[in-house]
Amino acid sequence: MALSEPNSRSLALNTATLGHNLDGHGAGWSVEQVIDACAERNLGGIVFWRREIGDRAAEIGNRVRAAGLQVTGLCRTPYITGTEAPKTLDEAKASVDMAAALGTSVLTIVTGGTEPGTKGVLETQKHLAERVSQLAEYADGSGVRLALEPLNPMFGGNRTCLFTVAEANRVCDWINRPNVGVAVDVYHVWWDTTLEEALKEAGPDRILGFHLCDWLENTSDMLLDRGMMGDGVADLATLSDQVKGAGYDGISEVEIFSASNWWQRDPADVLDTVVERFNALCDLSSC
Amino acid sequence: MALSEPNSRSLALNTATLGHNLDGHGAGWSVEQVIDACAERNLGGIVFWRREIGDRAAEIGNRVRAAGLQVTGLCRTPYITGTEAPKTLDEAKASVDMAAALGTSVLTIVTGGTEPGTKGVLETQKHLAERVSQLAEYADGSGVRLALEPLNPMFGGNRTCLFTVAEANRVCDWINRPNVGVAVDVYHVWWDTTLEEALKEAGPDRILGFHLCDWLENTSDMLLDRGMMGDGVADLATLSDQVKGAGYDGISEVEIFSASNWWQRDPADVLDTVVERFNALCDLSSC
Repeated sequence: MALSEPNSRSLALNTATLGHNLDGHGAGWSVEQVIDACAERNLGGIVFWRREIGDRAAEIGNRVRAAGLQVTGLCRTPYITGTEAPKTLDEAKASVDMAAALGTSVLTIVTGGTEPGTKGVLETQKHLAERVSQLAEYADGSGVRLALEPLNPMFGGNRTCLFTVAEANRVCDWINRPNVGVAVDVYHVWWDTTLEEALKEAGPDRILGFHLCDWLENTSDMLLDRGMMGDGVADLATLSDQVKGAGYDGISEVEIFSASNWWQRDPADVLDTVVERFNALCDLSSC
Repeated sequence: MALSEPNSRSLALNTATLGHNLDGHGAGWSVEQVIDACAERNLGGIVFWRREIGDRAAEIGNRVRAAGLQVTGLCRTPYITGTEAPKTLDEAKASVDMAAALGTSVLTIVTGGTEPGTKGVLETQKHLAERVSQLAEYADGSGVRLALEPLNPMFGGNRTCLFTVAEANRVCDWINRPNVGVAVDVYHVWWDTTLEEALKEAGPDRILGFHLCDWLENTSDMLLDRGMMGDGVADLATLSDQVKGAGYDGISEVEIFSASNWWQRDPADVLDTVVERFNALCDLSSC
């Protein structure tokens, strides 16, 4: 980043941080209000969720770029594996189309859980590789890359079959396509002391995203009690240095699910805090 | 195990499986009733919790052995690290004394969380190694070995600083004392595809326990919704073979925290189910 640019240009907002405007959380900001608020604070990008986009992908993508930001990513395909995964890849392919229409280069995949009738993780991971390979073939030429996101092992069973960056690397090796990589989220990987090595193995071609929040010492809800950067026990400065040290020079995305704390606040204040804490992190690390 | 012995002789009950008789869970069986019920079913051992023992350690140990079982282990020291850890090792040393008086050779350690004023895990792990080294020196000659139990990463922050068997091995290497090893609990490690290698590295001298339950596809409570063997997605047969293949020839301990299911049932039925499911596992694997 050029010295003349503020840190915030390296920062993207994942809209989940403002409560999705769903289920009674968040202040009900429209997509346009979110874009304007991010532009006012000179952020570099926004990551949306499919349910916010509907049939307005191209319009929203253009609106973001007109405001001087990029669409950093789209969350996410439906599950690819497990009991809750759709039987066909139709919905996943529609997600690729939506990402392309938005003009973003990254579509995140939370894999889904253990395949019915199987035990353990290896069989499911092999099934995942087959399905994602088909999806990657579909995405070829669209400009959209698929980011496999390993989740904290607490989400095994029904949400994921990938638990570490090292495992995501292995599945990427099996798939062996340039448009499949890894999303690194500190909430899921902060505890992993083999992470630095796995990130180096992934390298700049494969690391497709870096997601920030914090792991609170006392996490009251595993899904919806993520901490704001600086409020928890994750060593964010070291993690950030490791990701950048592995060659990732993309944007850092803040993604905080926090039903009982941040989602209860004025989204303008939340966004101000996000920028302030990101600046504090940049004082300690590469960003 | 000799062919003439039933599988159940390789099985120990962790009393938590019957609901601890605490907090309204379980049917209120006394320690003596638990011992008799395990002896009736020809189990090989029992693992107690400190709060069940009080000042009756020698008496209870003798009662277990008179019934033809062993005291397989004692749960557990207070936390060694983190905000909730006692300032001194006095209570941990008293746990060693209790284990020795019970006549068991294994005292389990759940490490505790991140040290105050630190981030990440390495600093806390180093502090853990220092403290456990002191405790191991105290335990020397007592016949009690200390089993460091890695926990599922969801318990980072306030309960553990050890997340994999590989990390427990590293801390054991730092401590470098023959009376410190590792407890392997399938609930915590079932997801780890590097486990087999780590178990081989640990080997028979360092693997001090093997705990069985299952990981339910939909886990409703991270602490208190463990599954009965066979009801979940963990590949217990492979895990069991890996532990035995690494040289562990000790007993398998069933430890199921299940507030809304198994703790609501008649403990006699729970125990019958434990034996039945263990036999089913033995049909598929080394046990």
